[in-house]
Amino acid sequence: MSAPYLLYYWPTIQGRGEFVRLALEEASVDYQDVARLPERKGKQQGMSAMLACLDGDATPHAAYAPPVLGHGDLLIGQTPNILFYLGKQLGLAPRAEAGRLWLNQLQLTMADWLTEVHDTHHPLSMNQYYAEQKPAAMLRSADFRATRLPKFLSYFAQVLANNPRRGDWLVGPKLTYGDLSLFQMLAGLRYAFPQAMARLAPAYPSLSDLHDAVAARPNIARYLASKRRLPFSEEGIFRHYPELDG
Amino acid sequence: MSAPYLLYYWPTIQGRGEFVRLALEEASVDYQDVARLPERKGKQQGMSAMLACLDGDATPHAAYAPPVLGHGDLLIGQTPNILFYLGKQLGLAPRAEAGRLWLNQLQLTMADWLTEVHDTHHPLSMNQYYAEQKPAAMLRSADFRATRLPKFLSYFAQVLANNPRRGDWLVGPKLTYGDLSLFQMLAGLRYAFPQAMARLAPAYPSLSDLHDAVAARPNIARYLASKRRLPFSEEGIFRHYPELDG
Repeated sequence: MSAPYLLYYWPTIQGRGEFVRLALEEASVDYQDVARLPERKGKQQGMSAMLACLDGDATPHAAYAPPVLGHGDLLIGQTPNILFYLGKQLGLAPRAEAGRLWLNQLQLTMADWLTEVHDTHHPLSMNQYYAEQKPAAMLRSADFRATRLPKFLSYFAQVLANNPRRGDWLVGPKLTYGDLSLFQMLAGLRYAFPQAMARLAPAYPSLSDLHDAVAARPNIARYLASKRRLPFSEEGIFRHYPELDG
Repeated sequence: MSAPYLLYYWPTIQGRGEFVRLALEEASVDYQDVARLPERKGKQQGMSAMLACLDGDATPHAAYAPPVLGHGDLLIGQTPNILFYLGKQLGLAPRAEAGRLWLNQLQLTMADWLTEVHDTHHPLSMNQYYAEQKPAAMLRSADFRATRLPKFLSYFAQVLANNPRRGDWLVGPKLTYGDLSLFQMLAGLRYAFPQAMARLAPAYPSLSDLHDAVAARPNIARYLASKRRLPFSEEGIFRHYPELDG
């Protein structure tokens, strides 16, 4: 019997934690979203348990930032690292090393893309509000929409086209955590930049197909319709500010 | 007999490729820095060979950006992914999975840190020159120096202090690629932000010790004194613009 998975992440946003939640939901395993549970005396749950994962005085392998995954004795930080571990555990990655490295490479490229999305609304400081850096955010967003967004979309469309095991997935013949993450990127971008995505998406039908194929997976569809799926909001990474959408 | 390692990276800067170079140099293995070799008809070397790694029409597993490592049939992109592979190949990582995941987590945290360093001089667009985004760069750099730089330094000092196999290294009792990367972060930060680092460094003697211990490794010392070590410059990721150093 496997230990339950414990996800430590901010309780009110999708954020980076969502990439982990999607993997756990697709695999339909027992997990707790620890910071969303109420604080209880003597129980390691609620926000205090999440913050303890970041506290190097309390936790030897403290993470720099959430999400963190607990599993048995392991405490694992950094989203692509968590997914690398879960991919093997949950059967959401190829077995061969070459496939796992390629998948990890794609996941890291999505992590870079996600950071660029974050910086569209926070180009100057993550310690200041969006309103305090709005002119810079408009410039960075214009550049993102014009150059970076099409480059990333085009890259992943080509990865799909180049998969020799031409199914509908990024790596090999089966769904991997990379497909779940690409779904989340596309869903988030549609939320944050509806106009830019409406303009660009028709050029990349394979990406829309992948988005829809992931959303239609039974476990994912059930999750997306549940209260466990937090809504997109202007406190997360994907934020809809119309002025940043051109 | 192992195939030679082929590093594909920009030929005139340290950049992200330097993290890979340091691992190859420490292990003293046979490698080629492909884009620094002259173009030769019929030979896969020079800039054209590097650019082919990024071309999805020519290369099935094309990378989004360099560095890329070639080894036998493998073509691996994303610096932390390359180092994850090399760590095992070159004996620069723990053998146990828990140690390898912890090391990967630290490497990914350094990758985030490095991106923040890049964005101090390019906060608005990587397609525009620094001079075109200087006011924003000054604001982002002020925030980096005041909040982010001390937070990262403090984090890695605590990781060193929390290593139960208290030698001088980040993970376990032996040097890993994480130590080489932390050396490079510190060397780059000293170059880019000499004043800020002179102010902050005394609070973190263990980091200075690690920097010096890596620099004194025989293979690294030989490398740093060679022409293979490119100089820091204002075309790389770590750039010294006095006005960004406060």
